[in-house]
Amino acid sequence: MSEKKHVKTEKNVLEGNFRIAQNLRRMFAQNGVVVLNLVSSPGSGKTTMLVRTITDLFSDFRMAVIEGDQQTSRDTERISSAGVPVHQINTMSGCHLSAAMISKAVKEFDLKNLDVLFIENVGNLVCPAAFDIGEDFRVLILSVTEGEDKPLKYPNMFISSHIVLLNKIDLLSALNFQKDECLGFIKRITPNAKVFEISATSGGEGMKEWYRWLEDAVNLKKKQSE
Amino acid sequence: MSEKKHVKTEKNVLEGNFRIAQNLRRMFAQNGVVVLNLVSSPGSGKTTMLVRTITDLFSDFRMAVIEGDQQTSRDTERISSAGVPVHQINTMSGCHLSAAMISKAVKEFDLKNLDVLFIENVGNLVCPAAFDIGEDFRVLILSVTEGEDKPLKYPNMFISSHIVLLNKIDLLSALNFQKDECLGFIKRITPNAKVFEISATSGGEGMKEWYRWLEDAVNLKKKQSE
Repeated sequence: MSEKKHVKTEKNVLEGNFRIAQNLRRMFAQNGVVVLNLVSSPGSGKTTMLVRTITDLFSDFRMAVIEGDQQTSRDTERISSAGVPVHQINTMSGCHLSAAMISKAVKEFDLKNLDVLFIENVGNLVCPAAFDIGEDFRVLILSVTEGEDKPLKYPNMFISSHIVLLNKIDLLSALNFQKDECLGFIKRITPNAKVFEISATSGGEGMKEWYRWLEDAVNLKKKQSE
Repeated sequence: MSEKKHVKTEKNVLEGNFRIAQNLRRMFAQNGVVVLNLVSSPGSGKTTMLVRTITDLFSDFRMAVIEGDQQTSRDTERISSAGVPVHQINTMSGCHLSAAMISKAVKEFDLKNLDVLFIENVGNLVCPAAFDIGEDFRVLILSVTEGEDKPLKYPNMFISSHIVLLNKIDLLSALNFQKDECLGFIKRITPNAKVFEISATSGGEGMKEWYRWLEDAVNLKKKQSE
């Protein structure tokens, strides 16, 4: 296939995806549900963060999860045991979730009875950046074990994110990680993103601030859909 | 674009890529150069491992590097300062290196005067799995901070790898990482892969075993090309 044809195909795929995503966003808004697209590289602690969040907020919000995974249902089992409805999408060789996949998956839920829908994307800092899946907020989880320079090296993903959760900060003392440098890079690439420094294991540092933000987002959404 | 058409397009792209990769492999063999495709998720310590390797083996082998990065030339600068020739490919929104990119990049090197060519792929555990770039060995770097289950969750990448470098083992005492469980998963997914437990920083644990393997590969390749 020629380079030109390839670019055209890609453009068509993204435009089609965007149309479906816009429809999804309208539907989510009508139902007053906040939708979060969780993105990160593999091993950032995305699922651990999610399981802790739904466990801690279980009595406050009505939540559900769409779980994107190349293979295995390991994450789905972890989430399911936390007690919220979860639907799994196995992307197999696919490297990202698309709006069409989400359209199909949301049929499993009664959106009217949800406050928050978490969509855990495939662990990949590249491909999911280009695919709008109808979310209100894109939440990027970056672990301090990954090095300071990730915002510079994967700018497309950072630019398109509204929230950055800087995870595993309990490991800082064991690492040679320049936190202020990293925060500077995030600020440079995505100046408006809100950053929370968290640890989803151990003492749960910073998780309360993240929950407070989520609570505000839910309240605002409910007001808008009234 | 229909699902069927999309699958056909993908098949054509992969077949075209494979043909170019086969030509590359022949050319590398004729020149007696060992080619390693380094793959991992972002932040596994791939570049740090590579810089240490070329620094430590500088007087033993004639080496060069092709550096694949979405953006920035940070890694290229790190490698360049270690004293070996390096050519950078910026993939921009692309999520993997292809054989065609490598075909173009190798023109920058005098292959006859090389023992080892390292190709550092884009940090991504999904897409590079499908793209043969003419390498002799695919080397997967997995950091112990990423969790035990990565072989199960990204099997395509693990199945296609010949070497697994389990990196950052100096951090084991700070983590709740079940090393034996992880080694078991690697063995289950890719039973023939050779695994080295290493730390590319601090004491450099395990690096000597990795270098010894590389030396054997170079010697064998030279013998085959005589």
